[in-house]
Amino acid sequence: MRKQIELLRRQSSRLEPDAAERERLLAAVSEYAQQFLNQLPDGPAYAGDRTGKGLLDSPIPETGIGIESILSLLSENIDTAGINPASPRFLGYIPGGGLYPSALGDFLAAVTNRYAGIFFASPGAVRLENMLLSWMAEIVGYPSSTAGNLASGGSIAHLTGIVTARDACDIAATRVQTAVVYLTTQTHHAVDKAVRIAGLGNCVRRIVPVDGRYRMDVTALAQAIAADKKAGLQPWLIVPSAGSTNTGSIDPLPAIAEIATKHNLWLHVDGAYGAFFVLCPEGKQKLQGMELSDSLVMDPHKTLFLPYGTGAVLVRDAQRLHASFSAEADYMQDTIHRLDELSSADLSPELTKHFRGLRLWLPLMLAGVAPFRAALAEKLLLTRYFYEQIRAVDGFHVGPEPDLAVATFWYEPPRGDANAFNARLVQELQNSGRIFLSSTRLGERFVLRVAVGVFRTHLDTIDEALEIITHTARNLAQKS
Amino acid sequence: MRKQIELLRRQSSRLEPDAAERERLLAAVSEYAQQFLNQLPDGPAYAGDRTGKGLLDSPIPETGIGIESILSLLSENIDTAGINPASPRFLGYIPGGGLYPSALGDFLAAVTNRYAGIFFASPGAVRLENMLLSWMAEIVGYPSSTAGNLASGGSIAHLTGIVTARDACDIAATRVQTAVVYLTTQTHHAVDKAVRIAGLGNCVRRIVPVDGRYRMDVTALAQAIAADKKAGLQPWLIVPSAGSTNTGSIDPLPAIAEIATKHNLWLHVDGAYGAFFVLCPEGKQKLQGMELSDSLVMDPHKTLFLPYGTGAVLVRDAQRLHASFSAEADYMQDTIHRLDELSSADLSPELTKHFRGLRLWLPLMLAGVAPFRAALAEKLLLTRYFYEQIRAVDGFHVGPEPDLAVATFWYEPPRGDANAFNARLVQELQNSGRIFLSSTRLGERFVLRVAVGVFRTHLDTIDEALEIITHTARNLAQKS
Repeated sequence: MRKQIELLRRQSSRLEPDAAERERLLAAVSEYAQQFLNQLPDGPAYAGDRTGKGLLDSPIPETGIGIESILSLLSENIDTAGINPASPRFLGYIPGGGLYPSALGDFLAAVTNRYAGIFFASPGAVRLENMLLSWMAEIVGYPSSTAGNLASGGSIAHLTGIVTARDACDIAATRVQTAVVYLTTQTHHAVDKAVRIAGLGNCVRRIVPVDGRYRMDVTALAQAIAADKKAGLQPWLIVPSAGSTNTGSIDPLPAIAEIATKHNLWLHVDGAYGAFFVLCPEGKQKLQGMELSDSLVMDPHKTLFLPYGTGAVLVRDAQRLHASFSAEADYMQDTIHRLDELSSADLSPELTKHFRGLRLWLPLMLAGVAPFRAALAEKLLLTRYFYEQIRAVDGFHVGPEPDLAVATFWYEPPRGDANAFNARLVQELQNSGRIFLSSTRLGERFVLRVAVGVFRTHLDTIDEALEIITHTARNLAQKS
Repeated sequence: MRKQIELLRRQSSRLEPDAAERERLLAAVSEYAQQFLNQLPDGPAYAGDRTGKGLLDSPIPETGIGIESILSLLSENIDTAGINPASPRFLGYIPGGGLYPSALGDFLAAVTNRYAGIFFASPGAVRLENMLLSWMAEIVGYPSSTAGNLASGGSIAHLTGIVTARDACDIAATRVQTAVVYLTTQTHHAVDKAVRIAGLGNCVRRIVPVDGRYRMDVTALAQAIAADKKAGLQPWLIVPSAGSTNTGSIDPLPAIAEIATKHNLWLHVDGAYGAFFVLCPEGKQKLQGMELSDSLVMDPHKTLFLPYGTGAVLVRDAQRLHASFSAEADYMQDTIHRLDELSSADLSPELTKHFRGLRLWLPLMLAGVAPFRAALAEKLLLTRYFYEQIRAVDGFHVGPEPDLAVATFWYEPPRGDANAFNARLVQELQNSGRIFLSSTRLGERFVLRVAVGVFRTHLDTIDEALEIITHTARNLAQKS
C-alpha cells in the first residue's frame, strides 16, 4: 500500500508548484495585471461585440497547459469582452472600480487560507473582521450592541437582515400571509428576492407612494400602516433606501424611524449603495436618521471601491442576529470554548467562507480613511457638476436633483417618441465603447443614468462624458 | 466647483498607487506569501496560545501606514494564531489546503473586477463559470438540463438547493407545519440551518435511523415516509450525505433515490465533502446513485483543495433553479438581451458577486484533472492506511471502516472514563501544535477524527501523526 501511495503522490505533484515555479507563475500574472491596469486610462469601458466564445474550444484538460496560454484565453475571452468595471469611464449601474490593495488582500487570504468563520480556528481573522464591522458601526452611529457580517455582497447581506427581522418579529410560517412589508417602487429588487428566499413570498408588499424626488411619502406610509392594522394585518418591516439604485434618492429616514418606533416595526435600511457616503460631511448630513434603524446593509464593494465580493450587514441588537444564525454540531465541539469574540458562523448564513476581511483591511490600512472621505466628496461634486452641465445643454432634461452620485437625464428629440430615442441613445453610447452608461425608467419615462462611483473617475472623465453624450444625442437627432 | 473637485482628487490619490508603487506592494506581499509557504513543511499546524489581541492596538487609521507594518500585524496576529489550514499536518474538520494558483486567480479577479453575475456585463466570465459547472455536472453524471452555481461555500449552496426544492414542491408558508424532511443524525448542520433560513423552521424533521456504519437505514426511511403519508403529512425532501462530516459515510444513494422517485420526493444530496471523489475510480464506485438526485452540493474548497470561498450547487432541472432565483428591475433593463448563457444572478441568491470561477479554473487548467484524480486516490489510501495502522496499536479502537478520507478512533484507557480520556487526548494533541486533529461524538462515544484532505498531506505526515498519537496516548495513560 505504501508504494501505491507514493506513486499517487508523484502523480499529483503538479498541485504543489515549488518556490521557483510559484515565482514564475506570479511574475506572469503580475505582468498581466500591470498591463491591464496601465491600459485603463485609454482602454474601452465596454466591448459589446465579444462574447468569450473562444473559451468553448478549451475545455478543462486532463493534462495541464502553460500559464501563458491560460492568460491569453483570459485576455481574449474575458477581460476584453463586455463591460470593464475597472475603467474610469464605467458610469453604469453602481460602479466602484476595484482597489488594487484588495487584490493583494485576496491573494494573501487564499495563500494563507485562514478559516475566518470561527474564533477558535482563527482568532486573529475573526477579530479583524469584527474590528472592521465595529468601525462601520461607529461611522454610521450604531451602538456598541451591534454585530454584523461581511457578506459576499448586498443580496446575502439583505437576506441576513431580513431573516433576522423575520425571526425577531416572530413572523412564523402560519402568519406570513397577513404580514406586511413596506417598500417603494425604488426599493432594490434584492430586497424582494431576499423576502422570497426567506419563505415570505406570500407576505403582503405595500408599495408606498413616492414624492417628486422618488422618496418614500411618509404620510402615505403612516396611513398605510394604520389601515393595515385596522384590517387585521400585521405590519412588521419597513425597508427605506439610503441611496436608491435608480436615482440615488434617500428616503426621509428620521420620519420613517419615528413611525417604525411608534408602531414597533423593524426598520431595515438599504444603504448598500449609499451608507458609506457618511464618511464625508455632505453625505453624513444627508444620511441622518440611518443610525435609528434596526439593521443596515452597506457594501464595501460599492462605495468603498472594493472589487466585487464584499457586502455587509449590521444589526443593532447582536443577540437578534445570533438567535437567527447560531447552530451547533458534534463535530464542532472543539470550537465552543473561549469566546473573546462572536464568530461569523454564528452571525450569518455561511459557515466555511472566504476571509473577506483582508480585502477591506489592506486598502483601509494602506491609505487611511482620509482619501476615502475625499474620494466620496469628489464623487458627489462630480455628479452635481454633471447634472448642472447637462441640464444647461439644449434638448436635455434632467431627473430629480441628485441626493448622492447618480444623475438621470434624457434628450427630448425634435420629433418622434422620446423613450424610443433615448433607448437608441443609450445603445449608441454603449456601442461607442468609450463610456458606459446604463438606463432605467422613472415612471413611464425612459432615462439615462450617470453613476459616478469608480474611484478612478475624475473631472476629465466627466468632461469627456458630457462631450460624448451631447455629441451623440445631436447626431442621432439629426438622423431621426 | 472645478477647483474643489480637483483638490479632492489630489486628496484621494493614495487610492490609486502608480505602477512603481504597485510593483513595490506586490513584491512585499509576494515575499510574505513565499515565506509563509516555504515554512509550511516544518511550521506548526496550530497555535492555541495566540489570539490576535495585538490587532486591537491598531485601529483603522485616518492616515495610512506602510505595507511592512501591515504585514507584521498580519504575521503576528493572524497567520501565527489558531489553526493553520494550509499545513500538511492539518487533519481536522474537512481539510483542503488551498492551491496556490487559486490565489493567483483571486488576485486577477480582483484586479480586473469583472462582473460575473450577468452575461451582458461579462459574457466571458459567465461562460467560464457555466463551463466549470457543466464540467462538474459531467463528472457526477448529471444530464445536460443541469444548471448550477458557484457559491461562497457549502452553506449558501445548500440554501440554494433547498429553496429550489421548497418552491418546486410548492411548500407554501401555510403548509410548512405538515411538510416533512428526512435526515439522519449525521446530516451536516448547514442543512438544518438552510431549512431555517428558508422559512421552513417549523417543518417536521424526521431523523431516520442509521446502520452500524452511520448510513441511513433505507427500510426505516421507507417506513417513515409511509407512516407520515398515512398521518396526512407531506413528505417532500430527503437529504442523504455523500460523505458525512462526522465519519465520511455515504448513505445508500441508489436505494434512497428509488424511494424518492416512488414517492415523488425531492432528493438533495450533500456531497459538499464527498462528491469530488467521483474523480478517482474508487470514489466513483462508492458514489454510485449520486447522479439520480434532483440537486447536489459539492465544494471545490474541500475536495478540490481550493482555499476557502467556493462551494457549488447543481440542480438537475435548470428551470427549477431559475424559477426560484430570477428577478427583474428597471435599472437592469439593458441586461436582458442576448442570452447565450444563463446568468448566475438568475440562478442564485446573489446579484453582484466575486468572480469565483478564476480561482477554480486556474488550478484546473494549469495542472489538468489528472493530478486531482491521483491526489484524491492518495487521500483515500492514506486514510485506509491510517485506519489499519491505528487499529493495530494496543489500546486503540476504531470507528466504522472509512468510506472516504475520514477515520475515527479512540483510546481505551486502562482505568477511568474513556470519553474524558479522549477529550484530554485531543486537547494534548492540539496543544502540541505539530498536528491538528478534531473530535466528535458517535452516539455517546467521544472519538477523535483524522481527516486526510490537505493536498500537501502525504505518507510521511501520516506516519508522523501515527507516532505522535500513539506516543501522546500512552503518556497520558501512564499519568492517569
